Amino acid sequence: MRATVIHAARDVRLETVPDPVLSTGADAIVRVVAACVCGSDLWPYRGVTPTEEPHRIGHEFVGVVEEVGPDVQRIRVGDFVIAPFYVCDMTCANCRNGVSTSCLHGGWWGEDDRFGGFADGGQGERVRVPLADGTLVATPSMPAPELVPHLLTLSDVMGTGHHAAVAAEVGPGSTVVVVGDGAVGLCAVLAAKRLGAERVVAMSRNPERQALAREFGADEVVAERGEEGIARIHELFDGIGPDCVLECVGTAESMDQALRSARPGGRVGFVGVPNGGAELPIRRMFQTNVSVRGGVAPVRNYVEELLPEVWDGSLQPGRVFDLELPLDDIAEAYAAMDERRAIKVLVRP
Amino acid sequence: MRATVIHAARDVRLETVPDPVLSTGADAIVRVVAACVCGSDLWPYRGVTPTEEPHRIGHEFVGVVEEVGPDVQRIRVGDFVIAPFYVCDMTCANCRNGVSTSCLHGGWWGEDDRFGGFADGGQGERVRVPLADGTLVATPSMPAPELVPHLLTLSDVMGTGHHAAVAAEVGPGSTVVVVGDGAVGLCAVLAAKRLGAERVVAMSRNPERQALAREFGADEVVAERGEEGIARIHELFDGIGPDCVLECVGTAESMDQALRSARPGGRVGFVGVPNGGAELPIRRMFQTNVSVRGGVAPVRNYVEELLPEVWDGSLQPGRVFDLELPLDDIAEAYAAMDERRAIKVLVRP
Repeated sequence: MRATVIHAARDVRLETVPDPVLSTGADAIVRVVAACVCGSDLWPYRGVTPTEEPHRIGHEFVGVVEEVGPDVQRIRVGDFVIAPFYVCDMTCANCRNGVSTSCLHGGWWGEDDRFGGFADGGQGERVRVPLADGTLVATPSMPAPELVPHLLTLSDVMGTGHHAAVAAEVGPGSTVVVVGDGAVGLCAVLAAKRLGAERVVAMSRNPERQALAREFGADEVVAERGEEGIARIHELFDGIGPDCVLECVGTAESMDQALRSARPGGRVGFVGVPNGGAELPIRRMFQTNVSVRGGVAPVRNYVEELLPEVWDGSLQPGRVFDLELPLDDIAEAYAAMDERRAIKVLVRP
Repeated sequence: MRATVIHAARDVRLETVPDPVLSTGADAIVRVVAACVCGSDLWPYRGVTPTEEPHRIGHEFVGVVEEVGPDVQRIRVGDFVIAPFYVCDMTCANCRNGVSTSCLHGGWWGEDDRFGGFADGGQGERVRVPLADGTLVATPSMPAPELVPHLLTLSDVMGTGHHAAVAAEVGPGSTVVVVGDGAVGLCAVLAAKRLGAERVVAMSRNPERQALAREFGADEVVAERGEEGIARIHELFDGIGPDCVLECVGTAESMDQALRSARPGGRVGFVGVPNGGAELPIRRMFQTNVSVRGGVAPVRNYVEELLPEVWDGSLQPGRVFDLELPLDDIAEAYAAMDERRAIKVLVRP
């Protein structure tokens, strides 16, 4: 089969690799219907995270189950399935606590081969899915083609935007600011409105992303950043700031903006993968009672909640995909994301 | 009248000072019945916080109202009142949001004279209380003498321990670890049990404090610290750690212990005044989804909730006072706290 392999910074190739084979009894082989490129795939692509040796890449995919091992009970051949961006059993203490990203027996696509064989990445034709009963969620039936992009977002970006909102305790009547206008930030706008937020302000300087933020329910858009952005946000929320700020970038600047935008006692939900050297300013948090919660999003725990609305068409997070390419053009998919020519790229094998 | 004045490190004196006078219309004069020394008073006492010029000190007191200004409507002459460790109006947006420590019109005892005159401290015979209607809470009637120490804890330590528990979202069934065995840590044990925690572990090496922690409801005590302490805590909680950790110290070591003790997705409630240079490790928080919430405790917002149980005797946080001295011996009160000869010292004018 063919699968994407990253060799080094800006060197991503579609290569012929061995077909996956069942090996643990608890795994499944999934034929990929759609996959995508994640903002976090850009860290190795840009060389920010070094690539020591070539390995498979990609961690967001949906597809159809072709084979299952003898210990698989819930997932069946022929199921259309959503895979989260990690492997988990959904039975350990952490999974039951809602934190399946800390699964005691889980791991990562393309990077962790302790599951009885080579670890596949999601940007390929087929994937061996370890712990298939825990990791995968089957849809009620075969989805209409137009639903596929929306379902694919449950692998990562919609669940991650939702996690930011849940971590910041967005609820009915909340006032919310979203920092970050990438696919996750846009999904966070959607998630905040879905959870009942009264007023959502998206921070964005990009006209296309501003427009999508408004379509996703943002009541206002603030283009300013830094001190000016914070002043503008305070002005919009009674001089004190909103209840909730969803940090969907991961830089020192974006977290600073989030912390200083929130009102005293406000809540920062963060899902941007932290990069740069800055830690969290404990004195500021102490003085203002602004809290910080979040992290790598346990999206598998959210699929059951979000799927019904995606399935019936009332929730359409797949609109974040503004470019679709064949898997053959995976290098171009990365380049388009890297150069911000696309919000998010969907690829089809 | 006589009041405590701090001049420099380890130089705390009871001095004759001018009697307080009403000056803003919204203030009250309170005759202090009992006051106490706070762990945070030890920062200037030890010279960790420099004392630039002599000023009044003390921020925890209860007493009887002797005079009120013409604009005071709720508080009356003769009321027995509890004063939180700060001044607040309870009507601004932050107070209404439950964060009266960020009152838009508030301030600090002994340090902030913008309320129309010299700012009194609590360790004196009388105190002018600005914004009396917001700041003070009157008890239902004159308390029995044995209730006074318990009521006094609502000024700070009980409300602060409660804040740690609220910030960590302790509720029915929660598993909880308390880091710190000072008066606040001990009150945090009491608060956690009161909020329905299933199991509370207190971390303490001091036999008297261990005993009081158990009397306050701790199910177990762990004497180990650092790596050993963390390993012991994980062992006690299914190998992953408790749901909630209440950080009641404020050092880099105690916060590190708190963050690494909590289970993935767990919640650190912190009320220890941060000292030392360490910030919060955002990558660890991201990877584990352990959250941090807390800060300077809005104890005024908690008085109404806690007072009825103190009043009927079912909640006895005043047991943290293990030494009582006349105000004349205020220097000895500081020394006893400083040398850890006492958990907390109550002083009576």
